[in-house]
Amino acid sequence: MKYSKVYKSALFGDVIPFWETHSVDKRNGGYFTCLNREGKVYDHDKFVWLQGRQAWLFSMLYNSVEQKQDWLDMAKTGIDFLRKFGRDGHGNFYFSLTREGNPLVQPYNIFSDCFAAMAFSQYAKATDDEEMGNLARQIYNNILSRREQPKGPYEKATGNRPLKNFALPMILSNLVLELEHVLDPKEVETTIDICVDEVMEVFLREGSNLIYEYVNPDGSLNNSFEGRLINPGHGLEAMWFIMDIGVRRNDLGLIQKAKQTILSLLDFGWDEQYGGIFYFKDAMGYPPQQLEHDQKLWWVHLEALVALAKAYEQTGCDKIWQWYEKVHEYTWSHFPDPENGEWFGYLNRQGEPHITLKGGKWKGCFHVPRALYQCWKTFERIENKENK
Amino acid sequence: MKYSKVYKSALFGDVIPFWETHSVDKRNGGYFTCLNREGKVYDHDKFVWLQGRQAWLFSMLYNSVEQKQDWLDMAKTGIDFLRKFGRDGHGNFYFSLTREGNPLVQPYNIFSDCFAAMAFSQYAKATDDEEMGNLARQIYNNILSRREQPKGPYEKATGNRPLKNFALPMILSNLVLELEHVLDPKEVETTIDICVDEVMEVFLREGSNLIYEYVNPDGSLNNSFEGRLINPGHGLEAMWFIMDIGVRRNDLGLIQKAKQTILSLLDFGWDEQYGGIFYFKDAMGYPPQQLEHDQKLWWVHLEALVALAKAYEQTGCDKIWQWYEKVHEYTWSHFPDPENGEWFGYLNRQGEPHITLKGGKWKGCFHVPRALYQCWKTFERIENKENK
Repeated sequence: MKYSKVYKSALFGDVIPFWETHSVDKRNGGYFTCLNREGKVYDHDKFVWLQGRQAWLFSMLYNSVEQKQDWLDMAKTGIDFLRKFGRDGHGNFYFSLTREGNPLVQPYNIFSDCFAAMAFSQYAKATDDEEMGNLARQIYNNILSRREQPKGPYEKATGNRPLKNFALPMILSNLVLELEHVLDPKEVETTIDICVDEVMEVFLREGSNLIYEYVNPDGSLNNSFEGRLINPGHGLEAMWFIMDIGVRRNDLGLIQKAKQTILSLLDFGWDEQYGGIFYFKDAMGYPPQQLEHDQKLWWVHLEALVALAKAYEQTGCDKIWQWYEKVHEYTWSHFPDPENGEWFGYLNRQGEPHITLKGGKWKGCFHVPRALYQCWKTFERIENKENK
Repeated sequence: MKYSKVYKSALFGDVIPFWETHSVDKRNGGYFTCLNREGKVYDHDKFVWLQGRQAWLFSMLYNSVEQKQDWLDMAKTGIDFLRKFGRDGHGNFYFSLTREGNPLVQPYNIFSDCFAAMAFSQYAKATDDEEMGNLARQIYNNILSRREQPKGPYEKATGNRPLKNFALPMILSNLVLELEHVLDPKEVETTIDICVDEVMEVFLREGSNLIYEYVNPDGSLNNSFEGRLINPGHGLEAMWFIMDIGVRRNDLGLIQKAKQTILSLLDFGWDEQYGGIFYFKDAMGYPPQQLEHDQKLWWVHLEALVALAKAYEQTGCDKIWQWYEKVHEYTWSHFPDPENGEWFGYLNRQGEPHITLKGGKWKGCFHVPRALYQCWKTFERIENKENK
């Protein structure tokens, strides 16, 4: 079977039906994301990241694949829930809510807001609803205004070791393209410039060619637990955001640089003994802080596949193709659950699922279907080119 | 070899020399705790929990084993460092500091304070220094005044699901005995009454006979990730604190109840497939939130050994002895590092060290030597009784 078909049939034959069947809260609106191996709801809490991500995903399918009413309805239940219950009095999105929408955990970072902005923006595109577009823009502006103090009063660092975090420029480089249709074009280009510079010139380090999670404000490295932290999956995800920008701008240099970074991150992050990509590593080889450092996570492998497929489409590089096949083989033989559908999220180093949930506090209807969609479309283009 | 000798020789032949050799910061005072497998310092940050714990440990050895000047000097370097750099303007202890003592992470919980209070109190006993005793009492009172809002402004929960946390009554039940010599006797007895009631009547649940980490304010169970969480090692540690109280009060009912709880926690927490005690489990068997849930941690096994040894001393129960031998066999064959000294902290489910550090952000000079000391002394009493 052609790769495009492998991805498309997993997306529409397995993953999307799984979430359509199991995740809707018919009583209160929004989505349940705590689904056990069989898809049964085991906890009713609602995590705002995952509400936004699922509403985004179904809006995106509606906009990019087919205008199915079911998909729009699915998006709407999350959008309505977020509008009604998602924000505190300052317009910041909570981290989590009860099933009924009562806030449980305060807005202690801005990632809830990032995923909400993505959701409202895609939903605005689907419905042509100006109010939704305005809301997306408002949230985006609120994110920018909070970017220097993203944790607000919940910041526990004293300021004696100020560190810049990779997550924000990384996510903004994707968010700004997601919101393009509701933003001023100049704003879009300026933000892209800043993000590309931060990601590729500050957090990506010459020499090691690795992406660091934290650096000093002046861009130098910091020899501390945070400053030595490498999250290969995070870097790989960023590289496909950057490649999308490279394609948009027809910037071949940027695409080549992203491709090289993908290779370095995989060389560094690959587990030679058991296969798969490590979750965290210390850049200097010191003991990592994260007890889950050597686990194999679903999203890391899916983001790697997207990055590799896009890099192969753009560069045709042999080394990229060898890595693609290696990561494909590991991912497809370890993560999908043929018995109950959807994908496992958490494998131990040896490759066995040590938690068998399909969704929880962090895993929802997002990384699996987004990556399946991205790989499907990318391989469709590659295969069409080959057939010419 | 007799068990008392096994423990004593590991304590003084291996563990104490390891920390004496590798952990002292001769330049700035205080202790390095980030030591790799060989004992080499790989990070210089100073974590206040571990500064307090190590100062406590060496003061305790001085008070309880032998008045060695080296041990007192070792305690003093941590005590001086904590006095000089440990507290913010409100008298709350920071979470971490740089090597030089500059604060890095704010006082976002009260456990730094608990370990500092223990340290100052033991050091006061060692030196007969009234100022140190006063300081310990001040810190203790500050802990009590913060107990309703232990995270202060860093609390991220909205209050819509108020939960009581087991950690505080558990640690207080030990802390109050540690500080007995500087507290009013009535205060000591009242606090013990409250702690025993909270631990044994609120967090310990009839039926399952398990100790929950969080319950509703009215003492009922809460069906949420936090409300379903069982940390067997935490419960086992609490049971030897409670048994010490039982012995002190000659309360045979309390000792029996603690013994039964040890058995239930081990039945629930033991890994039948690979051996060892799980780190976290969901009480209802749902997928746990903690990615490290199935790992085998050093302190869990050491606290289990202390609890079992004390329970055997007090009750002579056969079942307890069978468990003692089972946990002993697992612990002694997996955690000590005969090649480089001291003990591994973090084993994967299969029992292999997946991080080989001897000390880090959470592991310092505390659980290993404290448990070796407790087991040595307990077996000495058991063996003396047997020889009579």
